[in-house]
This record gives sequence, structure tokens and C-alpha cells, in this order.
Amino acid sequence: MLRLAGQTARHQANRQRMASEIRNILFIMFDQLRFDYLSCAGHAHLETPHMDALAARGVRFSRAYVQSTICGASRMSFYTGRYVASHGAAWNNFPLKVGEMTLGDHLRKRGMRSWLIGKTHMKADDEGMDRLGISRDSIIGARVSECGFDVHTRDDGLWAQGEEGFYDTRRSPYNEYLNAKGYDAENPWANNANAGIDGEGNIASGWLMKNAGLAANVAEEDSETPWLTSRAIDFLDSPEAQEPWLCHLSYIKPHWPYIVPAPYNDMYGRQHIQRAIRDERERRDPHPVYAEFMEGKVGSSFARDEVRDAVIPAYMGLVKQCDDQMGRLFAHLEKIGRMADTMIVLTSDHGDYLGDHWLGEKELFHDPSVRIPLIVYDPRKEADAARGTVCDALVESIDLAPTFMEAIGATIPNHILEGRSLTPLLKGDTPEDWRDFAISEYDYSATPIADRLGLAPKDARMFMVVTERWKMIHSEGGFRPMLFDLDADPQEFDDLGDSPEHRDIIEKMYDYLFAWARRSSQRTTVSDDLVRSMRKNGSQHKGILLGVYDEDDIEPNLLTKYRGKASTPPDRAQKRRAGQN
Amino acid sequence: MLRLAGQTARHQANRQRMASEIRNILFIMFDQLRFDYLSCAGHAHLETPHMDALAARGVRFSRAYVQSTICGASRMSFYTGRYVASHGAAWNNFPLKVGEMTLGDHLRKRGMRSWLIGKTHMKADDEGMDRLGISRDSIIGARVSECGFDVHTRDDGLWAQGEEGFYDTRRSPYNEYLNAKGYDAENPWANNANAGIDGEGNIASGWLMKNAGLAANVAEEDSETPWLTSRAIDFLDSPEAQEPWLCHLSYIKPHWPYIVPAPYNDMYGRQHIQRAIRDERERRDPHPVYAEFMEGKVGSSFARDEVRDAVIPAYMGLVKQCDDQMGRLFAHLEKIGRMADTMIVLTSDHGDYLGDHWLGEKELFHDPSVRIPLIVYDPRKEADAARGTVCDALVESIDLAPTFMEAIGATIPNHILEGRSLTPLLKGDTPEDWRDFAISEYDYSATPIADRLGLAPKDARMFMVVTERWKMIHSEGGFRPMLFDLDADPQEFDDLGDSPEHRDIIEKMYDYLFAWARRSSQRTTVSDDLVRSMRKNGSQHKGILLGVYDEDDIEPNLLTKYRGKASTPPDRAQKRRAGQN
Repeated sequence: MLRLAGQTARHQANRQRMASEIRNILFIMFDQLRFDYLSCAGHAHLETPHMDALAARGVRFSRAYVQSTICGASRMSFYTGRYVASHGAAWNNFPLKVGEMTLGDHLRKRGMRSWLIGKTHMKADDEGMDRLGISRDSIIGARVSECGFDVHTRDDGLWAQGEEGFYDTRRSPYNEYLNAKGYDAENPWANNANAGIDGEGNIASGWLMKNAGLAANVAEEDSETPWLTSRAIDFLDSPEAQEPWLCHLSYIKPHWPYIVPAPYNDMYGRQHIQRAIRDERERRDPHPVYAEFMEGKVGSSFARDEVRDAVIPAYMGLVKQCDDQMGRLFAHLEKIGRMADTMIVLTSDHGDYLGDHWLGEKELFHDPSVRIPLIVYDPRKEADAARGTVCDALVESIDLAPTFMEAIGATIPNHILEGRSLTPLLKGDTPEDWRDFAISEYDYSATPIADRLGLAPKDARMFMVVTERWKMIHSEGGFRPMLFDLDADPQEFDDLGDSPEHRDIIEKMYDYLFAWARRSSQRTTVSDDLVRSMRKNGSQHKGILLGVYDEDDIEPNLLTKYRGKASTPPDRAQKRRAGQN
Repeated sequence: MLRLAGQTARHQANRQRMASEIRNILFIMFDQLRFDYLSCAGHAHLETPHMDALAARGVRFSRAYVQSTICGASRMSFYTGRYVASHGAAWNNFPLKVGEMTLGDHLRKRGMRSWLIGKTHMKADDEGMDRLGISRDSIIGARVSECGFDVHTRDDGLWAQGEEGFYDTRRSPYNEYLNAKGYDAENPWANNANAGIDGEGNIASGWLMKNAGLAANVAEEDSETPWLTSRAIDFLDSPEAQEPWLCHLSYIKPHWPYIVPAPYNDMYGRQHIQRAIRDERERRDPHPVYAEFMEGKVGSSFARDEVRDAVIPAYMGLVKQCDDQMGRLFAHLEKIGRMADTMIVLTSDHGDYLGDHWLGEKELFHDPSVRIPLIVYDPRKEADAARGTVCDALVESIDLAPTFMEAIGATIPNHILEGRSLTPLLKGDTPEDWRDFAISEYDYSATPIADRLGLAPKDARMFMVVTERWKMIHSEGGFRPMLFDLDADPQEFDDLGDSPEHRDIIEKMYDYLFAWARRSSQRTTVSDDLVRSMRKNGSQHKGILLGVYDEDDIEPNLLTKYRGKASTPPDRAQKRRAGQN
């Protein structure tokens, strides 16, 4: 335990007293945080001591993958514990259907409430709620509308505004906060927190990446990340937190707009930018879908060095600010003694290409996009052996939901949850039968790229299958697969998708995808245990006799109901039967 | 039109006047009616003139398959228009999850109510309704509980009773009817309608197949099939029927218990039993799953000639009674002029092995089980060309829901409904791109057979893929496939599942299954049209700018929101930014 940073004696005492069980779960998510932008994950210039400290007291998963590389779909998988193809909310603002169960529903059944502080990117299924008569004003309706969470502070953090109005039409607690603090803009999120000032004192919007290096026109303490941390500290000190809780603390940063207040805006310069992970080979005869993404506006923009030079130092500053806020948050947890009985998860909903592979943003399946940072701190003694270790087992984001269920001693509803509890890995044992492959999906049917490729909505979908060594990407619509050898080519430059020597590997990868696609994902109203019990108790004790010819075919006791004097039918009926009419 | 039987001049007049549109849909389902037990389908001894007459005025589909070979799962596919793997109600009494949309929901949106008369085999998702606060007493709750239908008469027709009580614990309108008619038994369904009388005047239950030949101890007019037809006639004459309607008239017969009142009980004898479709080859080294079903209680019972000799004449009598009731029903429709504007569908939820392939009941995928009778009468003029024809296109039971939507001029929600409208086939054209294969599924995880095979719940599942010529059955759990050549071996005796010469065929069939398994089935909250419109209208008009480095990367009009004088931040903030603290 020497690794443990900043511990107080009180915390130590609490550990001894409480570590036998988990009382709370702090589920921290950053948005668009790359797996490799932590110093504990090997970044050359970025120091993230507080995240590193959490890794030192927990387990860092080095091969964690999201179920989809776009925010909304990925989050719906975190929150439902199910693959995208199972919950159906396949893209941003595709509503999560009413009836789809969430982590909040599962934990609530076990007496634990799930609180939201920050972002979900959830779009409510208004039509479904109307159809089922569920009012958004009711407690049930409010939870259905916010992905099963009870809302402490909901702020999706994208208060973008154009001539068609706001991207997010709901109230902005953050803008309300800034206005109350004296920021007098109509939309201080856009004009202060995500904009600098140019030479003439005009707004220099963070939406224009050339402005990324300017200081955001906001006090650091008033910027989004510290503001949300303050809301989390408010929660930890609130009456609600006196009961066991799951708190989903969900930050918008380091997500774009790429701009950060002083002093973070000029902490990093070109000299701190790591070399782009890209190679000319990738532009020679690329896979048609990959080609379209490279040629798209975002890809071609991030292929420019001036864009990387402007954006990456700001992105690093945003990450640095996030790390400092983790220090603030963890110190408060120590102070109130909650480090001792709180499981802490730190992760992200996907990565950010930042120009790698000639792409920006996320969406495709190279590691900078599909791999996520994942650190899990388990306060229980049983987890001591694994503290500070790195686990390279294949982990999926849907593994968190069953991990949380097991953490509070609940049965895992594995007829609904499709992931696997990480509990054994948190103790340092990887089960013999741990998964051989992980899956990720991307539905780009609503993007212009689908039009450029001439694809019908149902064909603009991709699947990634990754094993310890291989990564294959299948695209619907009649394209060849993409294949990467992660041992020989960890940077994923050589697409072996049409290599004759790799036919067998590709076939094997398709076998995995096929097995996954045939899984039972919708039999969610009947548990496996109930199914097994039905095998023993057929319906014969309720009078259903099948395949019984005569008394010899059946236990005598089952026959009682079929014995006895026949009741006299009514005369009219008797006459009829005798044909007297 | 010469084929049309029993038409009245009034009907003809109505036809001329009304045939331009469909006002009502009469969706008739029998339970466990074999596709080949109609005279129009070639039965050697059974005459079904009324069903034949409907076929003469409509189209008979000779290759219609159910989505599952068990009642509940098959019906949920009819009623949701979705594959079993999509709706999840994979076996009898597996609740249909709240939120799963039904035919009733889709039609209601277009102003047509869907009425239930008879059976659905629906089990409500009580837990889901509680979770979402939906009361079964509310109109919405009542519909959710009965698969989207408005209930005219709900009678699932299985009033079996054992020492653990009733199989169906809800009220029995049929027993209430019989009691009111003077049948004084506690459960006249069991003791009169489904039992005969032995020599000593004791109950001879229909549950014992040796009694199948006895006359049921009930007046023919009081037996289930005529009783339900009377309820349908009541409905047709009711105020509810004055508005456009879909009426699901869903009979329990010719489903077991195999017993029928006079005169139907002795209409047929051994001389009318068609030769069993079975061969000793099937018992030599059978597929392990098939072997378990043959060795099961039902299979081994139906393999006995005495069982077939007892059951089949009674089954034929039940079918004959069903046909006579169709005559009664259709005559009433003619009388009230509804033949002119009502689409009529006649089908079944699955077949009945009746000893074929050494099996009884249904469940596996040989034709006697998975193929169903399907007759569709479309009153519109456009359908005249195809009247009396037989269509051998591959049809699935989920094709009915989109057919009904199109029949009333509604847009087909093809992001939810997975079948394909039969409308072109009803006009005599089979589209070039009609499906190449049909799918059926069977989840036997809740049966003792799964235990005998040592299968986990999620592995006790089977998939059938059938094309014009081939039928392959895949079983989860590591078994080889089964394959039949329907051209060379229409009786399905020769299992080619391990034939080396058929590797390519099997691979091709697996390709079909794989393509089907990857389908998008859960993106049900966003229509394809909406997806396409999203391609055109990104979020840039709501202020989201991606890949924009400077003004040159964007249309000037989009920049307005990012221009203007920067707002003055509060002093405190300014000081902070200047580091004055």
C-alpha cells in the first residue's frame, strides 16, 4: 500500500474498518479522453499524477474497448450493460427505447439509487413514453427520460447555438451558473467558457480550431470541469449521499470545443505534441469506407499539421485540468472518509484521433478511437493483491454494469446484462474462460458518408472484432473486411483485409462475429434460473398432459382430475347429441 | 370470378362498389392446423370446401413458414411483425417485454382498432409494467397485457387443471358460457368439451389420447369452435364493428386435447389416415437434438400406431368442424356485405407432426411443423388477377403485419417491422428481389430435453434457414447442422448435414443465417426516412462546427453566432485570470 498517495490516517482507519464491503460507487466518465493521454499510460509529456494515483490504488485495464465509437451509442451501452445492437440507440440522438432497462433500474431493485452529475447524451423516447402513458414529470418518467438516473445536475455540455437554435434545447445549469456569477452573455458557455478574445476584443470562438491556443474567456474555477467537480462535492456533502449511492460524474471535457482557460492554455506547446500515428501506406488503396472518412471534412482537416499544432496543446491542457480536478475530488473523498467504502471507476466514452490515421474525432476503430482509459479502484481487502497492476485482458465497457451489481452483492441479471463482471480481475485473477474477443459497432447511416457510399440506412453499419492479436472490421454493404495484426503492426498501418495469406484468420474472426450475432439478447423477461426451473417443473401439474395415450403413460396421482362421474349435460344438448333435431 | 362460391347479388354489388379499398381486416388463426390438412392443399380424404372457397377467391401461399414452431413465440412474431430473436418472447409464457410494439399499436396510429376474439397465448410483462407504472386496469395497460389488442373475448382455450391449479388462471368466458347453458361441472371445458363418457358414465378425458374417438360430452353448437364463431358474429353485428376494424379471430382448435363432439367424432376412420411421413433411415444415427426429441415422451408416444389411429381421425374431425364454422362465418360476412371491403387472412400458428418423422406436437422444423396454411383474400379489384392462384414464394408469418399496414394505406414502419408486405404477391407479381431464404427459430431452453443434452439456457436454441431448394437447421451448443434437399427428398428423410459433398451448400446456408443475424433489429425509435434526412441536415445549423480551423473552412453565414464583441467577464474572474490572488 506504499504506493497510495495523499492518504490520511483517518482514511487508513476507515479502510481497515470498511474495506469488507462497498457502500458507494463513483462512476467517473470523461468525454473523448484518449486511453494514452495519461502519464500512467505512457504519454511522453503529459503528467496526470492524480489519475495515476488512482491507478496505483486500483487496476488499470490496458485493453478496454467501447461498444461504439460515438458518444450516445457508447454511453447507452455503459448505462444499459448491453451491446448497441441490443439496445438499438445506435447513434447520437437516436432515442433509447422505453422498456430498455438501465443500470439505474437494476441497482434500484437492490436499494441503491443512481445519481447523475453531468452528461449522458441520452435522448428520451418521447413517442414510446406517450404510447405507454408515461409522463416526463413523474418520477418514473424522469428516470426513463434520463437513462435510469436520478438527476442531481444534468448538463450535456454542448450549448452550441446556430441559426436553427440550440443543439440542446433543455435548460443549462452551467449557463445559469455563469450568468449568476456575472457573465452577462446570453450563452456564456459559447462566448466565455468556449471562446477566447482576439486582438480587437472580439469573441474568438473555440469552434474555430485556430483559436484553440487562446485562453478561454472565463475564470478557471468557473470553467466546466471545476464547475462539475464542485457539483460532485456538493453531492458528496448532501443528505442524498448519506444513503448508499452510485454517482455518475460525467464530464464533457476534454471533448471539443478545444479551448481551455489560463493557465492550462499555454502549458503545452508544439514540443509536447507526440508524433502523429499515421503513414502514407494508409492512403494507398485504402478500404472504401476508411477512404471516405479520410476524405471527409474532419479527416482532411485533422490531416493538416496546423490543426494538430493548434488543437493538441489545448487538448493536453484540458486533460491536465481534468487531472487536477481529480486531485481535488479524491482529496475531498479522503477528507469525508469515503475512499474507504467507495468503488471508483475512471473511464471515457471513446477516444479522439487527433490526426492519427489521417482522421479527427472518433467513429472508426483504430486504437486512438475505440480504446479507452479504464481504472477501477476497489476498496475491499480482497483487491489489495492487484493494486497498482495493469490488466491486459480484453475488457468491454458493458463489463462495468455487472461489476457494479456484484460490487454491492446483487445477483447479476445475465439474461439482460451482456457484459461480464470484472471482479475476479480486480483481485488479480483472469478466469480461464475469459472472453477471446471484444466487439464494437458503429452505425453511420445518418452521416453524409453513407450517402457518398450510396448505402441504405441498414447497410451503413460496421462491426469490429478484436482478439489478443488481431483486429478485424466488417462493413455491411458488400465491402471487404479490414484486418490488422496488432503484434506485428501495433500502429495499425497495414490493412491485411485482402491478404490471401490471412484468409484463415479472417474466417476465424468472422466465426467470432457470427457467434456473437447469434447471441440471445432479447429474452430479457425470463432469467436463466427461471428457465432452468421450468425444465424441472413442466405444466403437467397444472393439468397439461402431453403424449399420454392411456393410464399406463402417466403417474396415477396426475389422473385424479380426469376421473369421476361425468356431469349430466343439459337436455337440449343431450337431444342434439342424439340427433333429435 | 366463376370460382366464387355462395355469392349473393348483394355481395357482387358490394364488390363493385367497395373493392377500391379495404375497410376491415379479418385475421383468422387456427391453432396447430397443418398446412396439408385442407383439401385445397391436397389432403386425400378431408374435404374443407369453405377454406377452399376462400382460397378460390384469394391467394393460397404454399410455402409459408412460422417464425417459431411453438405457439407463444410464433404468435408474438405474428403480432409484433418481428423475428423471435428481436421480440425475445422465445417460448410459451415468456413475457413479451413492455415497449415491444404490436400490430395493434401500428394500426391504432392509423385510426384502426384491433380486436381480439379468442387466443393470443400472450404473457404480460408484469415486472416491466410495474417498473414503468402501467396499471393493467388502464386502457393502455390492458392493451399492453393483451399484445396490443382491444379485447372483445379473450379465451386462450387451455383450461387445464391439475393439483397445482389451473394452467390459465384468468377468467374463462367459455366455461362461464357452458355453465350458463346448464353444464354443471366446475370446469366444463375439461369435463364436457374435452372429455367423453366411458361405459360406466364416467369422464373419459380427452387428455388421454385413447379417448380421442369418443364424442365430446357437449352439444356440437356449444363446443369451442362454434362458440367462438358466434362471438365473432356478435362482434360483426356490434356497434364496435361500425368503425373500421382488424379482428383477430383466434381459435384454439384443432389443437389438443384431441376430441370432438358428434357428428365429427366418427366422421373419419383408420381408412382416412394418410400414411405416416417417416422412415427407418431417420432413426439411424440421427442428429443428437433430433434424437432427443424422438426419444422424448411425445415423440415415442406418437411413434405408436395406436396413437395415430386414435388421434388423427379426431384431428380430422376437428378440422372439419373448423371448416364448417368458416362456412357459417363467411355466409354472415356475405349477408352483412362485409365480404366486399374486408381483407380475410386464414392461417395457423404452426403445424402438428401427428407421428410424422417419429414425432408428435410441433417444435422442430420438418414441414408438418414449421409450414402453415396461409390464405389471403384481398377484396380489391387489383387482386382479381390472382384469385384462386397458389403462390410458392417463400413467405414468413411476419409478412402479415406490413401487409395489413399497406392494406389500409399506411406507411410501413420498416425500422420496426421485419417482414415484407405480400401486396404485390396478392396481385400476382412476385418482386424480382423477393427473399432468398426464410428463417424460423426454436428456443427449447426451458424443456427437459435441454437438460438431457446438458445445454446452458442460451445454447438450447435452433435456427432454420430454408431456401427454394434447401433447408438447414443449426443448433447452438456445438452440434453439426442438419440439411435437407427439398427437391430430391421432399419428405425430409435424408439428413445431409455431415455430407462432404454438401459443404458448399451448408456454407451458403450459413452465410444466409449470418447475414440475418447481423440485421439491424433494435433501432426501432428512428425511421429510415428520418435517418436519411439526418444525412442532409447535420447539426452545424445548431452551432456544432466540426473540422473547422478558420473562416475559410466554413460558409460565412454559419459564423454569425461566433462573432461580435466579447462580453466582459466579472472582475473577480478577471483578477483570477490575471493571477492576482
